[in-house]
Amino acid sequence: MKFKHIFDHSEAYDARQPNHWRTALHTVIFGTDTRAGRRFDLLLLYLIIASVVVVLIDSVHEFRSAFGTYLIIAEWVFTVLFTFEYVARLLSVKRPLRYVFSFFGLVDLLAILPTFLSFMLPGAMSLTTIRILRVIRVFRILKLGAFLQEAGILTNALYASRRKITVFLTTVLALVVILGSMMYVIEGREAGFTSIPRSIYWAIVTLTTVGYGDIAPQTPLGQTLAAFIMILGYSILAVPTGIVSSEMAKADYKQQKALRNCPRCTYPSEDRNALFCSRCGAELNQSPSQP
Amino acid sequence: MKFKHIFDHSEAYDARQPNHWRTALHTVIFGTDTRAGRRFDLLLLYLIIASVVVVLIDSVHEFRSAFGTYLIIAEWVFTVLFTFEYVARLLSVKRPLRYVFSFFGLVDLLAILPTFLSFMLPGAMSLTTIRILRVIRVFRILKLGAFLQEAGILTNALYASRRKITVFLTTVLALVVILGSMMYVIEGREAGFTSIPRSIYWAIVTLTTVGYGDIAPQTPLGQTLAAFIMILGYSILAVPTGIVSSEMAKADYKQQKALRNCPRCTYPSEDRNALFCSRCGAELNQSPSQP
Amino acid sequence: MKFKHIFDHSEAYDARQPNHWRTALHTVIFGTDTRAGRRFDLLLLYLIIASVVVVLIDSVHEFRSAFGTYLIIAEWVFTVLFTFEYVARLLSVKRPLRYVFSFFGLVDLLAILPTFLSFMLPGAMSLTTIRILRVIRVFRILKLGAFLQEAGILTNALYASRRKITVFLTTVLALVVILGSMMYVIEGREAGFTSIPRSIYWAIVTLTTVGYGDIAPQTPLGQTLAAFIMILGYSILAVPTGIVSSEMAKADYKQQKALRNCPRCTYPSEDRNALFCSRCGAELNQSPSQP
Amino acid sequence: MKFKHIFDHSEAYDARQPNHWRTALHTVIFGTDTRAGRRFDLLLLYLIIASVVVVLIDSVHEFRSAFGTYLIIAEWVFTVLFTFEYVARLLSVKRPLRYVFSFFGLVDLLAILPTFLSFMLPGAMSLTTIRILRVIRVFRILKLGAFLQEAGILTNALYASRRKITVFLTTVLALVVILGSMMYVIEGREAGFTSIPRSIYWAIVTLTTVGYGDIAPQTPLGQTLAAFIMILGYSILAVPTGIVSSEMAKADYKQQKALRNCPRCTYPSEDRNALFCSRCGAELNQSPSQP
Repeated sequence: MKFKHIFDHSEAYDARQPNHWRTALHTVIFGTDTRAGRRFDLLLLYLIIASVVVVLIDSVHEFRSAFGTYLIIAEWVFTVLFTFEYVARLLSVKRPLRYVFSFFGLVDLLAILPTFLSFMLPGAMSLTTIRILRVIRVFRILKLGAFLQEAGILTNALYASRRKITVFLTTVLALVVILGSMMYVIEGREAGFTSIPRSIYWAIVTLTTVGYGDIAPQTPLGQTLAAFIMILGYSILAVPTGIVSSEMAKADYKQQKALRNCPRCTYPSEDRNALFCSRCGAELNQSPSQP
Repeated sequence: MKFKHIFDHSEAYDARQPNHWRTALHTVIFGTDTRAGRRFDLLLLYLIIASVVVVLIDSVHEFRSAFGTYLIIAEWVFTVLFTFEYVARLLSVKRPLRYVFSFFGLVDLLAILPTFLSFMLPGAMSLTTIRILRVIRVFRILKLGAFLQEAGILTNALYASRRKITVFLTTVLALVVILGSMMYVIEGREAGFTSIPRSIYWAIVTLTTVGYGDIAPQTPLGQTLAAFIMILGYSILAVPTGIVSSEMAKADYKQQKALRNCPRCTYPSEDRNALFCSRCGAELNQSPSQP
Repeated sequence: MKFKHIFDHSEAYDARQPNHWRTALHTVIFGTDTRAGRRFDLLLLYLIIASVVVVLIDSVHEFRSAFGTYLIIAEWVFTVLFTFEYVARLLSVKRPLRYVFSFFGLVDLLAILPTFLSFMLPGAMSLTTIRILRVIRVFRILKLGAFLQEAGILTNALYASRRKITVFLTTVLALVVILGSMMYVIEGREAGFTSIPRSIYWAIVTLTTVGYGDIAPQTPLGQTLAAFIMILGYSILAVPTGIVSSEMAKADYKQQKALRNCPRCTYPSEDRNALFCSRCGAELNQSPSQP
Repeated sequence: MKFKHIFDHSEAYDARQPNHWRTALHTVIFGTDTRAGRRFDLLLLYLIIASVVVVLIDSVHEFRSAFGTYLIIAEWVFTVLFTFEYVARLLSVKRPLRYVFSFFGLVDLLAILPTFLSFMLPGAMSLTTIRILRVIRVFRILKLGAFLQEAGILTNALYASRRKITVFLTTVLALVVILGSMMYVIEGREAGFTSIPRSIYWAIVTLTTVGYGDIAPQTPLGQTLAAFIMILGYSILAVPTGIVSSEMAKADYKQQKALRNCPRCTYPSEDRNALFCSRCGAELNQSPSQP
């Protein structure tokens, strides 16, 4: 399904020359079937997690002042290693440009760019946490076939309900714009509703039931409208949930049914255990029983 | 279905005279089939978004002091344009009064009124953000047939569950009135529960799990009752969700069933694979298999 | 169903003597079939809402200092009227004690008690807002048959899932006791976790995603545990929702199926439109089509 | 099912010698069939609740300074009693080590350890609230067969959806790491985003719609990103709910179907009303109709 495709973006440099060094490199870097390929992926997994941890630690004032130099060295070591890996990936695939603009190609690039950018933009290094996304790729080495299938079901359910969700989000956005403007008029600057964008921000905080409390209505009218927004947000939460629930139930139903078409008359059999076509009597192929 | 009707509130001035200028105007303003009609809708879409952005910017203190004059001019230009458009709509429809009191007629009027009212009521101009609702109409020009259908399913599911939702909301309202009064008695003025309406406001904030924290119980008894309200709110959130989920599953089920009526006796067949009517035995038309 | 029974707790004083004044009184007070009965219920509805509004207004400091005397007089007028009504109800039913201890009998009593208690306990009068519950009874006069049926479906779905919900709530309570104790040990008094009960209160505030912010963890370890509690609370919200959703889908399914038993072989027909029994061929009774 | 197994971890010391004192002890401590066994469990239930209440009270400053000595004595009495009980359990089971490392064996140990540890670690005594978990065991004496079955359905539904939930939680964790880092770069130290771990904590607080408000974005860009996170968190709440709902509907469906196996060929019949096996034609047993 769709979801698996994001892992298949790279063809080997030249499949007809399995002994060419670039093809061999591809087997190690992209493959998971050989021992070398699995070891490479495991090593990469540890490197990614270690590099993310270094960035997290580096951002804490106490640790930075204590181990600042070591953390910067570690960060550069990781970046250089990931740069080598990126170049190796570029060399080993058949169509480098296609890889560069694939989902994981972009993630791989974004994982090394911020460190280089940090010469010009202080703070950019914090963005290297995008490396965490690379962990998804390494998931392949674990026995994640089953997980990928479940992820596929989730993604398909969300994909199938994309239009309903768009309608829902558009309605929510229109609501918060109008309700935010009304609160701006009612409450005014004293209560923290200093501008319409800020009031819209407050309306989102309230409708989604987050409720920071940094801005809160003070007037009775404002509190009444706020109470209305809360009950609205509390109730319409049911809508996205209902959408995804019914979509997921449908996906499960389809998977469970395991329709088999009759080899003679193509009539679909809904009975998992049927031996013969219920219309023409031809013998059916026996699909493997499901887990 | 019901939902599509809010777009069909306007008949052309005189359909028998397709060359009359008012009929031609109707084709441009309300239609989306001609190139002129689509261009008009696109232009309107940009104007609406631009005018809402101007109102948002105008409410931010820094921008207003810097570009105040330009923003007021822009606001008036938009209002004059929308006023012309409103008059043009009035002229081009067969029954102007019916248009005026239709959903979009009222939105169109509310989109221009606040600017004129701002002479008398300072702050009224902020309410022009109601213009955002006009965007819904312009959605027609995008390929939104599918979206409208999905919106229709959502609206129908909500409509079908309106009684259950009313029962639920009535129960919630009765609960917050009683629980709010109890908190007023328990906590008193010191903790911010200065009146019953304010305590009811707090009960709504808590039951809907928004939790601003501007009012919070201080006494052990008050905190115990608050904890009870939270767990109640957390649990009964399941009720609207369950209502909408089951309603949506039903809507999906109906759509999926693809009832075919018998061409002879009009008896509806619920079996997707039936070849003959199960009542009179007439042959059924084979509907295309569903995706 | 169960739900309707709470309205049927009162039999007339003596049904064999329809002209006895107590039986006539019962027709007016409890009945909704006669014009007098409907008028009485409507009048009661207005009185209840007015009396609740008076209590709400009375609790607001500004209004009390301005109209204090009038509000107290109004409150006493309402209480005297409701006391007369309570006595009339006692006189008109066959078994007064059974009425007194029925759900609505208790609500009717609680609606007048606080005012009398306010001589001894200042603040008790605020509890008269329990009168809002009496509105439920008056719902009968509106065309609420359909609403009652929907309320019955909701109540039955909740009743059917009472055991699952008990298991869920017990688990949640055990969780907050343990997690609250852990936070008490980790965070200590400085961050506001001054006692285990207070820490349990905080754990409930966090698990239910209310999040007042009056108590918030300060140490990294405490914030890590808090983050875990939040994600837990966010995820297990799915459990009550799943319970109620599936229970409601079942209730809908049963209602929709409208099983009819064959008059000859008692075989149940699942096809709403079937004319003949699908097992023995006997003609089926035609149930009225459903709305 | 799986769930019941956690209660069956203990075999009697020697089933062939029912009169041996260790076997008799097992009947009292682990059994619920004899009067002595039920009384023991009831006594234990009261002791557990009393001991948890003592720990809760002991943590409140006012109570500790007033009744400190009595509370410590009570705590030690409970601990000694529970230690005796633990030893008795060890003596009465066939394989003591297996009991020690079973779920309830660990809970029983953790219920007495903190008191002994409190000599070395002040505050450890608060952790004795883990005793609350022991209440689960005592649930057996109440008529909780039905509850256990419901708990089993819940646990199975969660177990069946463990992979989908893992995928969901992994996605959420990756999201909060990346969004937290972005907020750290955007907002900086002034607004309370002092480090990336703290920003990740904030992102969790926001995404789960808890919203303490102790850290809140101040810049327009930060508030825009925060609004995005809120709407994201509000919408993806639908995913775990959808997972559990559809899993629970499936569990209900399976239970409802009441598969009957053919007495001749063991082929399962899915049709509730079938009289004969649909594969070999043997007559089926008629199961009792379901409630």
